[in-house]
Amino acid sequence: MSKGLLIVLSGPSGAGKGTVRQALMERYPDLRYGVSVTTRPKRPHETDGVHYYFLDREDFLRRRDRGEFVEWAEVYGNFYATPREPMETWLAEGHDVLIEKDIQGAMTLKRAYPDACFVFILPPSLEELRRRITARGSETAEARHQRLASASRELTYLDRYDYAVVNDRVEAAAEKLLAIIKAEKCRVSRQPDLIEKIRSGGAV
Amino acid sequence: MSKGLLIVLSGPSGAGKGTVRQALMERYPDLRYGVSVTTRPKRPHETDGVHYYFLDREDFLRRRDRGEFVEWAEVYGNFYATPREPMETWLAEGHDVLIEKDIQGAMTLKRAYPDACFVFILPPSLEELRRRITARGSETAEARHQRLASASRELTYLDRYDYAVVNDRVEAAAEKLLAIIKAEKCRVSRQPDLIEKIRSGGAV
Repeated sequence: MSKGLLIVLSGPSGAGKGTVRQALMERYPDLRYGVSVTTRPKRPHETDGVHYYFLDREDFLRRRDRGEFVEWAEVYGNFYATPREPMETWLAEGHDVLIEKDIQGAMTLKRAYPDACFVFILPPSLEELRRRITARGSETAEARHQRLASASRELTYLDRYDYAVVNDRVEAAAEKLLAIIKAEKCRVSRQPDLIEKIRSGGAV
Repeated sequence: MSKGLLIVLSGPSGAGKGTVRQALMERYPDLRYGVSVTTRPKRPHETDGVHYYFLDREDFLRRRDRGEFVEWAEVYGNFYATPREPMETWLAEGHDVLIEKDIQGAMTLKRAYPDACFVFILPPSLEELRRRITARGSETAEARHQRLASASRELTYLDRYDYAVVNDRVEAAAEKLLAIIKAEKCRVSRQPDLIEKIRSGGAV
């Protein structure tokens, strides 16, 4: 059985990663979503275990020190991490797994999982990004300003990614992601069993 | 305007490249097909300018010597080549171009167009490959035997390709090819304009 594909969906805050992910998962219901953990406060529309696992600081640090996270980071004073489980079990079982990460988290994951597929979601323009960050409305002006400055800076990480998808229309962006997953699974380098079968002279 | 994508569809004789290509072009009518030239005799179902441009030996060699071909080869005593035009004009105009090549032709193209996307079409099994080559019926037993032996050998070139698609069901194989084209166009390395826009600090 071949291993599943790990897809890391990334991009600046306000690019619309979460919306694109939801549209993708409607098209590919068997795709597993690796929920991140965070110590930041839950926003009104968010559900624990769906958008994030919301942990208090003490619990987070205890789990981190036990090695339960494949990466962790502190951003704007809050902790974020990617739990090792169930992600690694899903992958070993052959399921494709999607995780959603900010740039910093994605860059750390790239070292741990160089074979993962890294997709950068871009906002249609910096103006649209500003509008989206402002519309979020759950943050202070200071936090919004910081987030926009950081988004501008983060865009320069684009060339460290495999794919770039501009999120101008959510449905079109989700279709592109679906094509990326389908194509990646056809890559020769991801089909070692096929090469082995051919080398051993047997049937394809 | 960004350049078009060059897709090289390859694989052993009998893998079903032509059938998969037709199913792909029904799904993507704007894809341009770069017809190859050959000096081999036209088969009953073939049309000049559709399956190949059928040239006599003298005409072939004259055009070859004028540099009209991006690659050429002699296989089983016949000449085959890829004409430079209209392929390069189409690519420069931003159209995606598909060409169909045997292994030898594809490997030569890989040196001339390292950025092209190389897809290996595989038969479901060697038994199925034998059946398909036999069913073709337009060749001598000797030619069929030679072709099957060569196909076995050609399978070992798989790891020189970007993608491998097993042609067990034509429709499924065409869908995979379509996903590959869509995904390749999202690769960061194929979107230099996007990176440039971001570097210059403008809108995405």
